[in-house]
Amino acid sequence: MKFGGTSVADLERIRRVARLVQAEAARRPVAVVVSAMAGKTNELVAWTDGAGAADPALPASDDEYDVVVASGEQVTAGLLAMTLRHMGVPARAWLGWQIPIITDDAHGRARIDEIPPENLTKTMDEGVVAVIAGFQGVTRGGRLTTLGRGGSDTTAVAIAAAIGAGCCDIYTDVDGVYTTDPRIESKARRLAKISYEEMLEMASLGAKVLHSRSVEMAMAHGVPVRVLSSFIEPGQGDGNGTGTIVCDEEEIMEKRIVSGVAFSRDEAKITLYGLPDTPGVSSQIFGRLADANVNVDMIVQSHARAEGAANMEFTVGKRDAARAVEIVRAAKNEIGFADIAVDEDVAKVSVIGVGMRSHAGVAKTMFSALASRGVNIQVISTSEIKISVLIEAAYTELAVRALHAAYGLDKV
Amino acid sequence: MKFGGTSVADLERIRRVARLVQAEAARRPVAVVVSAMAGKTNELVAWTDGAGAADPALPASDDEYDVVVASGEQVTAGLLAMTLRHMGVPARAWLGWQIPIITDDAHGRARIDEIPPENLTKTMDEGVVAVIAGFQGVTRGGRLTTLGRGGSDTTAVAIAAAIGAGCCDIYTDVDGVYTTDPRIESKARRLAKISYEEMLEMASLGAKVLHSRSVEMAMAHGVPVRVLSSFIEPGQGDGNGTGTIVCDEEEIMEKRIVSGVAFSRDEAKITLYGLPDTPGVSSQIFGRLADANVNVDMIVQSHARAEGAANMEFTVGKRDAARAVEIVRAAKNEIGFADIAVDEDVAKVSVIGVGMRSHAGVAKTMFSALASRGVNIQVISTSEIKISVLIEAAYTELAVRALHAAYGLDKV
Repeated sequence: MKFGGTSVADLERIRRVARLVQAEAARRPVAVVVSAMAGKTNELVAWTDGAGAADPALPASDDEYDVVVASGEQVTAGLLAMTLRHMGVPARAWLGWQIPIITDDAHGRARIDEIPPENLTKTMDEGVVAVIAGFQGVTRGGRLTTLGRGGSDTTAVAIAAAIGAGCCDIYTDVDGVYTTDPRIESKARRLAKISYEEMLEMASLGAKVLHSRSVEMAMAHGVPVRVLSSFIEPGQGDGNGTGTIVCDEEEIMEKRIVSGVAFSRDEAKITLYGLPDTPGVSSQIFGRLADANVNVDMIVQSHARAEGAANMEFTVGKRDAARAVEIVRAAKNEIGFADIAVDEDVAKVSVIGVGMRSHAGVAKTMFSALASRGVNIQVISTSEIKISVLIEAAYTELAVRALHAAYGLDKV
Repeated sequence: MKFGGTSVADLERIRRVARLVQAEAARRPVAVVVSAMAGKTNELVAWTDGAGAADPALPASDDEYDVVVASGEQVTAGLLAMTLRHMGVPARAWLGWQIPIITDDAHGRARIDEIPPENLTKTMDEGVVAVIAGFQGVTRGGRLTTLGRGGSDTTAVAIAAAIGAGCCDIYTDVDGVYTTDPRIESKARRLAKISYEEMLEMASLGAKVLHSRSVEMAMAHGVPVRVLSSFIEPGQGDGNGTGTIVCDEEEIMEKRIVSGVAFSRDEAKITLYGLPDTPGVSSQIFGRLADANVNVDMIVQSHARAEGAANMEFTVGKRDAARAVEIVRAAKNEIGFADIAVDEDVAKVSVIGVGMRSHAGVAKTMFSALASRGVNIQVISTSEIKISVLIEAAYTELAVRALHAAYGLDKV
């Protein structure tokens, strides 16, 4: 069981979580992974910013950052273990270094190398609930690390894999994975099951419910993940109709062609005009951006009508846009383009489904649905199980609703 | 160097501390021990109270309490290490379990068993400042512990002993140990040196500057402790005229007869009337109180004029008074007293000095100084190097000033 920051935001909510754990622990051995109380990590990070602000020219002390930030989950783990014991449920808190959750030494964004399960399983076999501080680990040299974004979900899946858990239940503030964001399309439906591959695309394409990193780990280890609400009543979570199970494609009997519509407003489109139509131009541009750690997503190159010049469009995250332009502009002479423009007024809308592999016509349905509503497509990118289009941001909701209907996702 | 909670209460003060450490580190290898930011420990303790409050009938989870509370010092250690690095001073944070500071498993009030110095000295020899989270340790079984009251001072002295430091500098909000509380007697003077024994008595008798537990440890290991202000300028702390050195009696050339006047308003006096004058009565009373963990301080038994009955007066801490009365009253028949009374309107005033051992007349000076001001003495207790009297609380300041003058402590 994994509970995020809003589920453990104060003592009252921690007691609520404890009751859910108690109901589960009455049935089977339980390990619980917790995040820091909502807001605490931000407070700690702000302090580290202040401590590092003395001279921004000097390198960041990422290992000390981890010492500070890891304390947030430590507090929640201790409090939940205390609360459980006071309810008569044997429990103990486990910090990353005590299990140990061994990571590499990439402080602030460490990757889990190994979790020897013996310490945990020994106490769990004795009937003691293991309450684990998420988001944190320890290097082989004995220093604290944190896992970066999506860290607590990743801890939960990694622990589930290490101890051979039957399922990893991620409790969150929504009750499952939906065909699209219900705040935009009220007819959105909760999916009973979704495949790892689809969930991975949904997470990468804008759905916030699970971080793609934890889905990757679940897929690699074959751990079924269930997304469910932390606001259900104790005991209720065991029913088959609760939440969404993220699992192997083979375990989903009825395959849909399209499982969901995702969208993201975090994109910016960069256009280079008047590029020389010669080999090596792309590697010039994207090599420089990669060196600067700028992630490039969609790319399209179009030949201009006139003399051998071309245009190139690509998208980057909004927060990287200014930096990307600066990097490309600095190499204007080497690359040899005429002009550069940025458009932040764009959104990426995607349809995702493993059924695409065996069904033709999915793209056609998408394009005609958008065309019939007058939505102009700027860039297209596809993979085996998704089609993404870049459109003007103002059309986002319209496009999402049109696609949701076009693929029949609102049918019960 | 050790810095308490008010010295590291926010980022600005942590930077101030970092400058003091930087100045010191330019001269010699430095280990720094820090407390939690002021107020943080109280916040954490309040949460544990809340988490434990679900069912007060169940035993407290002291081991989980330690998991929660130890996080406070962890944060400060990380922040100070980051700040030092950003000032160009190599530093790293050390948590209790990393050094390790091995303790017994008396959670919430653990005692330090052993500190293998190798990990610390290795990095200190490489020129890295060791920034140590105070107040915390780890059991041999790998669980977190906290040291209870005076814990960070105790950590500092224990670390100083373990690494063979020349001195343990305790930075605090006062600039040394005074002949008495300067808020009561403006003529109070800072002592350049004071012996361990005197400091121990001062701490036990009401002086708040150092916790007696850390003084005991310093005495046991012969570690000189210097008390000085964290508000001095960097580099200034090295002068001989700064702070107060707590050291072995032999290193103090000029021994004063009396070094200081201490006082405490935390006492309550309990009187039992009409006790049978038979053997075993005292052990009846004080055995029961000891079983209930009530500390009894001063005791005086007076024979009543009439038939073999006696009265007994003793003092306990104010917060234990009600419980002590209850315990004694519950055994009224076995003990056989006639009546019991509590007086919380009392104060204990003490004079302390190693010179008492070789000088007669110290008590006489005390009693006549108090008598000349009309201060009535209720109970007297003495040790080799101190005399304490219990008086009516309203006379506290008057008595302190009278004694300060009577022993010439206001003379420069």
